[in-house]
Amino acid sequence: MSVLKVGIVQHSCSNDKFDNITHTLVAIGDAVDAGAELVILQELHCSPYFCQVEEVSQFEWADTIPGETVNIYAEAARNYEVVLITSLFEKRAAGIYHNTAVVFEKDGSIAGKYRKMHIPDDPAYYEKFYFTPGDLGFEPIDTSVGRLGVLLCWDQWYPEAARLMALAGAELLIYPTAIGYETSDDEAEQQRQLDAWRSIQRGHAVANGLPVVCVNRTGFEADWSGQTKGIHFWGRSFVAGPQGEILFEAPQGDACVEVVEIDKDRTEAVRRIWPFFRDRRIDAYQGLMQRYLD
Amino acid sequence: MSVLKVGIVQHSCSNDKFDNITHTLVAIGDAVDAGAELVILQELHCSPYFCQVEEVSQFEWADTIPGETVNIYAEAARNYEVVLITSLFEKRAAGIYHNTAVVFEKDGSIAGKYRKMHIPDDPAYYEKFYFTPGDLGFEPIDTSVGRLGVLLCWDQWYPEAARLMALAGAELLIYPTAIGYETSDDEAEQQRQLDAWRSIQRGHAVANGLPVVCVNRTGFEADWSGQTKGIHFWGRSFVAGPQGEILFEAPQGDACVEVVEIDKDRTEAVRRIWPFFRDRRIDAYQGLMQRYLD
Repeated sequence: MSVLKVGIVQHSCSNDKFDNITHTLVAIGDAVDAGAELVILQELHCSPYFCQVEEVSQFEWADTIPGETVNIYAEAARNYEVVLITSLFEKRAAGIYHNTAVVFEKDGSIAGKYRKMHIPDDPAYYEKFYFTPGDLGFEPIDTSVGRLGVLLCWDQWYPEAARLMALAGAELLIYPTAIGYETSDDEAEQQRQLDAWRSIQRGHAVANGLPVVCVNRTGFEADWSGQTKGIHFWGRSFVAGPQGEILFEAPQGDACVEVVEIDKDRTEAVRRIWPFFRDRRIDAYQGLMQRYLD
Repeated sequence: MSVLKVGIVQHSCSNDKFDNITHTLVAIGDAVDAGAELVILQELHCSPYFCQVEEVSQFEWADTIPGETVNIYAEAARNYEVVLITSLFEKRAAGIYHNTAVVFEKDGSIAGKYRKMHIPDDPAYYEKFYFTPGDLGFEPIDTSVGRLGVLLCWDQWYPEAARLMALAGAELLIYPTAIGYETSDDEAEQQRQLDAWRSIQRGHAVANGLPVVCVNRTGFEADWSGQTKGIHFWGRSFVAGPQGEILFEAPQGDACVEVVEIDKDRTEAVRRIWPFFRDRRIDAYQGLMQRYLD
């Protein structure tokens, strides 16, 4: 059995970047103390979810790569000797910013980056204003704990993204996330949304015979423009096995550091009984390259 | 609200073709009496699941299109004035047989055919021996009750199939199915398989903002070769809405005729709040046309 101990860090964020970073550094240490070999932080963990409003001053949250924030996490990875997945607001150039996961090797070097490919835009999630769509493709990142299929939040609704990572040899699908309820939605709608979010990601696990780790933020963040009633981030970070079975689920409203064991050998076993990759009709998938088949 | 009343017919099958057909004819009538405008039969409803063994005599179950069995269902559709989805073992020519869904219009004419594209092959499911892979692509079938995305069983594990049907304008994803437990699997594995099967299909609903109807057979069928201990088909036919929410689920061990209301207008509403199609990265999906990206 090839067990990988994955540490997941779920928390709320404040408007104080130093506080947010400090929280994650302590949590990384806690996860490593509990045995984690890989630690995964939630999406945009250094800041509140600033995309609730389109406002040019919010670009101040961005970091260059390399840069001060990157150096802090590089040092954390080196000090704790752990592979670390961070999610940063990347300033690449004036007018080109990305939503970027930076993966650090145990020695503090950068193992690779993933720039969010699918960018949402809907009330309270104005990401198209801030993030240039990723241009690095769906490339897994090789690390000492395995080949990691790192994706980000909105990507989680796209079977194409999960499949491409799997076809490129990812051993794990990983989704740092920031998703929550709109306060104006009724309880039934909130439940449907939460279930849909779990179902589709469990579906990616099943379709690809891969474990899935999703790390979401928690806590309430007000919309300072007053346009919406703000977002209750729903937490519920979870780990699913390669049949979509839930191995761990975090609470909704609380911060949480948890180390979950994933048996990487299960993928081989599951793909032997469910050899979906063998039977893909690659001769008949051309339409997937089209916007719509009308 | 644009409500479509969908009748689903779940049952066990015997070795008597006449009995199996008679059962479905009565059930179609019951569904229509209960208001069904569309009736969906399970996969290969005229026969036992003969693919448990590779045996040339089993080809005797096949039907030509047109042919005697087709005529019976055409007459049923006409008599009941209902759109009807059947699942037949199609004899196309000597040496070319397909697993084919034939869809009948209310007047008994054939609205369209779908030939199963993804063909499984594993112990007790030796479909590659019997079924030539489909050559009609992933084309929805236009009927008086809507544009139907008819797929078959093993297709249900492929996000590509669901997506292609959705991109081609399907208003509903429909999966006649024959799936069950291997008697030798323990209870935990059986539960994982059932959950995986539900999760991935609910995931197709979510990814595409479409209702999904899955009609599975029930009952135990022995493996007459003695190689395996036979299959307990798990029934559990279900209907999910466009957020993957379960609208109806049939029992595991019993035959069942149920009429479920599907609100087709929900797709428009759901795709407005979750506009996944808008953000697909069709510039970066080329890898989906490959077997593996090594």
